[in-house]
Amino acid sequence: MRGKVVCFGEVMLRLSAPGAEVLLQSARLDARIGGAEANAGVSLARFGHDVRMVSFVPDNPLGRTVVAELRRQGLDVGGVRTAPGRLGLYFLTPAAGLRPAEVLYDRADSAFAMADPDAIDWAAELEGADWLHVSGVTPAVGPGAAEAALKAVRAARVKGLTVSFDGNYRKSLWDLWPTDGAAILADIVAAADLFIGDDRDVALILGHDFPQTDPMERRRAAAEAAFTGFPQLSRVASTHRVVYGADRHGLAGFLADRDGHWTAPPLEVTGIVDRIGAGDAFAAGLIHGLRTEMAPQAALDFALAAAALKHSIYGDFNLVDVSDVEALLAGGGDVKR
Amino acid sequence: MRGKVVCFGEVMLRLSAPGAEVLLQSARLDARIGGAEANAGVSLARFGHDVRMVSFVPDNPLGRTVVAELRRQGLDVGGVRTAPGRLGLYFLTPAAGLRPAEVLYDRADSAFAMADPDAIDWAAELEGADWLHVSGVTPAVGPGAAEAALKAVRAARVKGLTVSFDGNYRKSLWDLWPTDGAAILADIVAAADLFIGDDRDVALILGHDFPQTDPMERRRAAAEAAFTGFPQLSRVASTHRVVYGADRHGLAGFLADRDGHWTAPPLEVTGIVDRIGAGDAFAAGLIHGLRTEMAPQAALDFALAAAALKHSIYGDFNLVDVSDVEALLAGGGDVKR
Amino acid sequence: MRGKVVCFGEVMLRLSAPGAEVLLQSARLDARIGGAEANAGVSLARFGHDVRMVSFVPDNPLGRTVVAELRRQGLDVGGVRTAPGRLGLYFLTPAAGLRPAEVLYDRADSAFAMADPDAIDWAAELEGADWLHVSGVTPAVGPGAAEAALKAVRAARVKGLTVSFDGNYRKSLWDLWPTDGAAILADIVAAADLFIGDDRDVALILGHDFPQTDPMERRRAAAEAAFTGFPQLSRVASTHRVVYGADRHGLAGFLADRDGHWTAPPLEVTGIVDRIGAGDAFAAGLIHGLRTEMAPQAALDFALAAAALKHSIYGDFNLVDVSDVEALLAGGGDVKR
Amino acid sequence: MRGKVVCFGEVMLRLSAPGAEVLLQSARLDARIGGAEANAGVSLARFGHDVRMVSFVPDNPLGRTVVAELRRQGLDVGGVRTAPGRLGLYFLTPAAGLRPAEVLYDRADSAFAMADPDAIDWAAELEGADWLHVSGVTPAVGPGAAEAALKAVRAARVKGLTVSFDGNYRKSLWDLWPTDGAAILADIVAAADLFIGDDRDVALILGHDFPQTDPMERRRAAAEAAFTGFPQLSRVASTHRVVYGADRHGLAGFLADRDGHWTAPPLEVTGIVDRIGAGDAFAAGLIHGLRTEMAPQAALDFALAAAALKHSIYGDFNLVDVSDVEALLAGGGDVKR
Amino acid sequence: MRGKVVCFGEVMLRLSAPGAEVLLQSARLDARIGGAEANAGVSLARFGHDVRMVSFVPDNPLGRTVVAELRRQGLDVGGVRTAPGRLGLYFLTPAAGLRPAEVLYDRADSAFAMADPDAIDWAAELEGADWLHVSGVTPAVGPGAAEAALKAVRAARVKGLTVSFDGNYRKSLWDLWPTDGAAILADIVAAADLFIGDDRDVALILGHDFPQTDPMERRRAAAEAAFTGFPQLSRVASTHRVVYGADRHGLAGFLADRDGHWTAPPLEVTGIVDRIGAGDAFAAGLIHGLRTEMAPQAALDFALAAAALKHSIYGDFNLVDVSDVEALLAGGGDVKR
Amino acid sequence: MRGKVVCFGEVMLRLSAPGAEVLLQSARLDARIGGAEANAGVSLARFGHDVRMVSFVPDNPLGRTVVAELRRQGLDVGGVRTAPGRLGLYFLTPAAGLRPAEVLYDRADSAFAMADPDAIDWAAELEGADWLHVSGVTPAVGPGAAEAALKAVRAARVKGLTVSFDGNYRKSLWDLWPTDGAAILADIVAAADLFIGDDRDVALILGHDFPQTDPMERRRAAAEAAFTGFPQLSRVASTHRVVYGADRHGLAGFLADRDGHWTAPPLEVTGIVDRIGAGDAFAAGLIHGLRTEMAPQAALDFALAAAALKHSIYGDFNLVDVSDVEALLAGGGDVKR
Repeated sequence: MRGKVVCFGEVMLRLSAPGAEVLLQSARLDARIGGAEANAGVSLARFGHDVRMVSFVPDNPLGRTVVAELRRQGLDVGGVRTAPGRLGLYFLTPAAGLRPAEVLYDRADSAFAMADPDAIDWAAELEGADWLHVSGVTPAVGPGAAEAALKAVRAARVKGLTVSFDGNYRKSLWDLWPTDGAAILADIVAAADLFIGDDRDVALILGHDFPQTDPMERRRAAAEAAFTGFPQLSRVASTHRVVYGADRHGLAGFLADRDGHWTAPPLEVTGIVDRIGAGDAFAAGLIHGLRTEMAPQAALDFALAAAALKHSIYGDFNLVDVSDVEALLAGGGDVKR
Repeated sequence: MRGKVVCFGEVMLRLSAPGAEVLLQSARLDARIGGAEANAGVSLARFGHDVRMVSFVPDNPLGRTVVAELRRQGLDVGGVRTAPGRLGLYFLTPAAGLRPAEVLYDRADSAFAMADPDAIDWAAELEGADWLHVSGVTPAVGPGAAEAALKAVRAARVKGLTVSFDGNYRKSLWDLWPTDGAAILADIVAAADLFIGDDRDVALILGHDFPQTDPMERRRAAAEAAFTGFPQLSRVASTHRVVYGADRHGLAGFLADRDGHWTAPPLEVTGIVDRIGAGDAFAAGLIHGLRTEMAPQAALDFALAAAALKHSIYGDFNLVDVSDVEALLAGGGDVKR
Repeated sequence: MRGKVVCFGEVMLRLSAPGAEVLLQSARLDARIGGAEANAGVSLARFGHDVRMVSFVPDNPLGRTVVAELRRQGLDVGGVRTAPGRLGLYFLTPAAGLRPAEVLYDRADSAFAMADPDAIDWAAELEGADWLHVSGVTPAVGPGAAEAALKAVRAARVKGLTVSFDGNYRKSLWDLWPTDGAAILADIVAAADLFIGDDRDVALILGHDFPQTDPMERRRAAAEAAFTGFPQLSRVASTHRVVYGADRHGLAGFLADRDGHWTAPPLEVTGIVDRIGAGDAFAAGLIHGLRTEMAPQAALDFALAAAALKHSIYGDFNLVDVSDVEALLAGGGDVKR
Repeated sequence: MRGKVVCFGEVMLRLSAPGAEVLLQSARLDARIGGAEANAGVSLARFGHDVRMVSFVPDNPLGRTVVAELRRQGLDVGGVRTAPGRLGLYFLTPAAGLRPAEVLYDRADSAFAMADPDAIDWAAELEGADWLHVSGVTPAVGPGAAEAALKAVRAARVKGLTVSFDGNYRKSLWDLWPTDGAAILADIVAAADLFIGDDRDVALILGHDFPQTDPMERRRAAAEAAFTGFPQLSRVASTHRVVYGADRHGLAGFLADRDGHWTAPPLEVTGIVDRIGAGDAFAAGLIHGLRTEMAPQAALDFALAAAALKHSIYGDFNLVDVSDVEALLAGGGDVKR
Repeated sequence: MRGKVVCFGEVMLRLSAPGAEVLLQSARLDARIGGAEANAGVSLARFGHDVRMVSFVPDNPLGRTVVAELRRQGLDVGGVRTAPGRLGLYFLTPAAGLRPAEVLYDRADSAFAMADPDAIDWAAELEGADWLHVSGVTPAVGPGAAEAALKAVRAARVKGLTVSFDGNYRKSLWDLWPTDGAAILADIVAAADLFIGDDRDVALILGHDFPQTDPMERRRAAAEAAFTGFPQLSRVASTHRVVYGADRHGLAGFLADRDGHWTAPPLEVTGIVDRIGAGDAFAAGLIHGLRTEMAPQAALDFALAAAALKHSIYGDFNLVDVSDVEALLAGGGDVKR
Repeated sequence: MRGKVVCFGEVMLRLSAPGAEVLLQSARLDARIGGAEANAGVSLARFGHDVRMVSFVPDNPLGRTVVAELRRQGLDVGGVRTAPGRLGLYFLTPAAGLRPAEVLYDRADSAFAMADPDAIDWAAELEGADWLHVSGVTPAVGPGAAEAALKAVRAARVKGLTVSFDGNYRKSLWDLWPTDGAAILADIVAAADLFIGDDRDVALILGHDFPQTDPMERRRAAAEAAFTGFPQLSRVASTHRVVYGADRHGLAGFLADRDGHWTAPPLEVTGIVDRIGAGDAFAAGLIHGLRTEMAPQAALDFALAAAALKHSIYGDFNLVDVSDVEALLAGGGDVKR
């Protein structure tokens, strides 16, 4: 934890239906801020790391709200530039009962998506940092963002930073511009130390499936394939979500390095408040574990508990501290006085 | 789906405690619109049917709110008349934890209850329609409404419409005026094609019990008795609610015609948001299945899934579309992006 | 139920995060009134008992809000005095998912904590009463309060009232002033007829542990030890909370007198709305049972059902009536119309 | 202030649109409690008087809310009986800009309107009281209520209480039952000491107009006519509302006894929060002045300032204390710290 | 009022800060629907006219909300098509004290702006209509919309409909695409019967200023120039907003035809709730007056009163009826019971 | 604007009644952050200055909320230490109509009030700063705070910073500890360059009154006396609040240096949203003017306009930018699009 963690990605305004309502059932929206890399960054800041956000927002009240909120959460916002375009939005109908959550993206032509990939001098931007985190959402939003993401991870590699990449593959996202998403993802993974992705992500990138029945076996096979395909890659991790029932999920974890692999058995997650951002919370938990030199099993357990706790927090950000995660790992409890 | 579905019944203002509060614990009420037939009508409109509401409301801001809300939900409100009297209200304390929901009716002397049974020329009103839906709540609210309901179903039969009748027997409702509820219900069932009612409804109407232990066996016996007692009746259906525990219900389905019967195994319903209107959602789902010529099992499964989804929607109306029901039947899912 | 129940203790303003938010995540707090003895008193008043609250509040709008709210709940507030100091506050982050509830006390230097122990003429104050209820929170908040609590229970004993004492031991509370909490608690138990406390409370007071594995066995051993140590004590009771899973607790009950002991098997409590005050609800339920001369098992069952229902009510107060408890004991139900 | 003030009248649930919305523009209603005599009673209780409310409410959660709210406000609710029927409601759209407030009554067939006039033993009910207050709304709601009001004022006269009667004539109210409202009002005024009514009220009761141009002259002439027509009447008072502009009212006051008359010049009332209940606040202020033996001018000034302050309070009740009224009379001020 | 009024324009989701907050000061937005032509259409529907909305919305929950809300307000939504693209949004910070309201448009690339101008067969769309209303916002949002607006007004002229055009010139809007706004506006005015625009609008279109000092003189001169420049134009109207002070506006009206001109003196508008949509309310009021064959002065007075009332209504829509406008014209009043 | 502005003072949690309610009329409080020096600091940060806050907060969620909120507003929070004690609170009932706002302080024993005056190494803390701002509230809260304030201003003087001191004398505040407030204030003014205080502040400090009738004359005389009494003082400034009527204030400004004096005529402030913090907004506006080397009249005008705008912003902080102030100075306007 000597240096800073730099997170690069789009930050959006999230507009969600209040309570268990469907979108615009009543005339009110809850407004929050979120985005895959910012979510991970906020969590890392709460875990005690110096985090610098790099992004583009419009020079208007919405963009300024994003900056203010990131500042509130303790991020260094010196790397958030203004640029022409809109602020990306997403509308969220939270899950309720047997009804799944629903996300409606409204992020086309955002300041981030349209930003000039050369607007950032990455050598300067990464000064003082020892870690770079990006996700697969970033290259998906537009060609400029894809090019910028590649420049970022390559510059990080040159400077000797650790690079973590959260695949985060979502088919609907890649409709925003016509390209070969798998190839771009492969280019980024090629520059990464830690790849957060499951067998489906690896299958997409490498172009072949993993037929094992057991999900952890599939992940192990995929990790091995990834280690073969990407020589610099040192770790592969993912969660495995098991939907036991409507309101009750199980969340298991997987981590592999070139010497072995570790699994964390499913944590039962009930009374879900907000499932959005759980993957980012896992990424942040894992990065925290690795940066604080936890043993692999401990790092994985910490990451999984952090992700499980995220389900209890409203909004994209995982507003919990190390002590909250540790308390859950120690068995949870009744009222904390 | 060539013609319209006509729904006849009272529409009320529902005033409920917000969140998990008890009634008037804090100084606020959530105001929604509902009523058995309107609930079914709104669901049918979302499923793609042309639905015409026939009702009576007072000529005041409350009555106009009812009309506006039905219009918002896509119903043809040309059949909603104004009449002297109040708007019927009901106060709702939602269920929470081990505490059951509580309904307090305040619908005496409503414009609907006091309406002149001759105010509607049913032959004209049913023009262009091929389906009429009424529920057992309608005759319960007053003698005029009872007479109007009978006139409606008889006119519908004369004109060759399909008539569905949802028994909806609730003891407390029939206290509104002194009469023989069972006899009136029998007269309406006598004019119906589809009767939605379980063995208790049939027992009440026919005057003898069904002693079978298994709930589906009781329903089958009751359906057979109903088919015997009411020669024109072609289908009998019902749900079977199993309270596994405080916050977790099971909802099973039953459908019989003169050739056979079908059952749908219990769907586990957890994280219940609002249980009111689930029966109306079942009725709408079944009517949709029958009108779109689904096979009996498919229609029953669709109706049960629709009813189960209703538990996830705040308010009386089942604000889901055919695609939502189909997604649940296909296995549900995590976040829909 | 000839006489009044007098409750003596601090009443606070509780400020809690709305919904499932963490404290001050958004710029709003829900404000409620609560305190161990007032919570029990409100519940007893709803169960039909005459209840007089004795307390100290500041002479400002916050103190007046406390008085008004107790009055609203049907308590005789003639014994609530004004005194210099602040109103005690506590900030609450409700539990959600895997995240436990969190209480932050801000009650130092409250009017209650700083009140003169001689400000109350207990002989006069207890006139017309046949029951006094205090909890272990009261002596914890300060030396004056501790002295007043002792004076109260001793005066009650002299006048022949039944004295109930709810141990309510919370380590963090006793940090408010430097003293030997166990000794003070022992002095109060020595004057009590009914002690609500489990084996940990008894162990603390008597200074030796109860090593039995089975929780009910430990409670029985502790009750026997308490009966030995405190000659006037006639009953010992407690709940046993079993955390089956994150969102699902079990609540069992224990009651002993000098002739025997009774247990109530765990009630499964799900869909928890607000867990605060459940212990006070148990105390009130038990006092109600004893004052209405229920048999021990019936009194214990009633108390446990009352405590279980509390989890479904927002706020500290258990806003349920005898009929609600009886309905749960009779099996609960679906919608109550 | 030796004895109690008894207030007799209906208490309703008021359901109003939040903020500046029109009724049911959004799906929420603010719920408050109000009614002419209760409003005056609450204000008197805050001014330090012992106030006993006599009324009828239904035995349901709505009726219990009324009782609890009156208790919260410090009234003795021992005289509030339960009776068959509904709780009277009224729906309020608050005024905004150039748009006047709008009240929609829904009080037909209320427990109060349908109560048996012989249900109250007035001799017993008035024990310990030295003042009775009723308003013209009470006899308007139904024949039983009218008879009860007459019995009340006559019993009060027999027992030597001071009787105040606030005319409160509203044409729309007297449509609830067919009768000669003027004759009933005259019967009540005949038993009153203090009549709060302007020249229009007196004209209605006595059957002749007051043609003077100046509003205070008209009031003086009307007062003289009233003193002539009703031998026992000792005081007549009223306000005079001057609508200077849309959002700015002037409120003047008038008081006469058999020896003279006094006027209070218009107070400018701006930034109006809630105009409902201002007349009741005037009545309470005047009764307070008379009961505390203020000189006539001082009593009138106090009453007018109390009424003016009511416009700043949300809800029917005038939640201000004597010190607030005195501060306004002393010139108001900036922030009070 | 034999035929329908057709309104053609974009309908947006308006997201505004609640109360007097600045945008996103707290984490909530109020969501309403609005757009110049829809606003006028809703007002006309409330005034009793048959109104058909023609527009384009995306086929997603936001587009469906627009349709549902227009339906709720009583519009025929048969002419609202779905098309690719986003739903146009605008963010609103309401005015407060000395702080002006602030609108942030986010409507680029909306379904309406990108719609194919040939998607509508105007001859068919205008069947049954006798009036077409469009505003200057419509051609501003994009070239397709501009072309569609021209096709609409020309088709209306061919079919003999009355065409009203509300200039609504806003400089910031015409930045959305590069064009000569004045020329397009002139083409539309050339096809209009009623042009709502003041001297600045006419100056822009005709290219010369009106130097008169008196605002009504300027309007008269501009109207004369417009009548000269556009031979088919029969009426020109506008409001004149006078900002007397921060919270107090005056709103005057002007109407001219080829035979004369009329003015309505300033109405003082205080306690402003929501100023957005006042111009559309004026347009609707004037169209109502003309369609119901009011004399010019009466139509102008009605329009001005309608616009003044709009300031008291939250949201874009003027939720008042003819009776409300008439009551204001008759002098307003205190509480309406 | 080369260096930082350092602000030293307590930051509190402000809990206010929502809307126009009285405190705890309903069960909700709005929670904001505020404090005289933080308010000025936030405003300065929005005006483009680098601002460092120095304060003490408890190490709990409330203290962390303060830090997060200051960070959100753009302040450097590196100088905010944690210390034992509570977070100071204040409860606010906003003004409404004729009812003045009411502040209830609950700040005794706060972490700030109890902080060790030697905890801050002022020489280090002021490094990189060229301006120090404190207010008279700081020494009032306790002896440690008073000593710390003196140390701060003396260290600032030694280092050559400009020192601004806002007198902010409030009698109720100085009750928190027994001392000679005037002497302490004098010691601080003795070290200040800019004193914000009117003739009452100067009179208190110097011990003699200013008898002039005209408020600006009194201010001039007081400024002259202050310049005489405090040799290093270079500027004296104040506002003059004129309460024209209940809902309408006038705000005038005064500024003097040793060469002359300037006045700004009253700005009419209507539609007041929140009056708290207006004085701090004036201080920030003036400091901004002086730091950007505006001429005295321009600086005073800017400060007064900033203070006037504050009345339109909810909360303690003046959330306006330089462009908003300049727009008001340029004449304000209607909707800003």
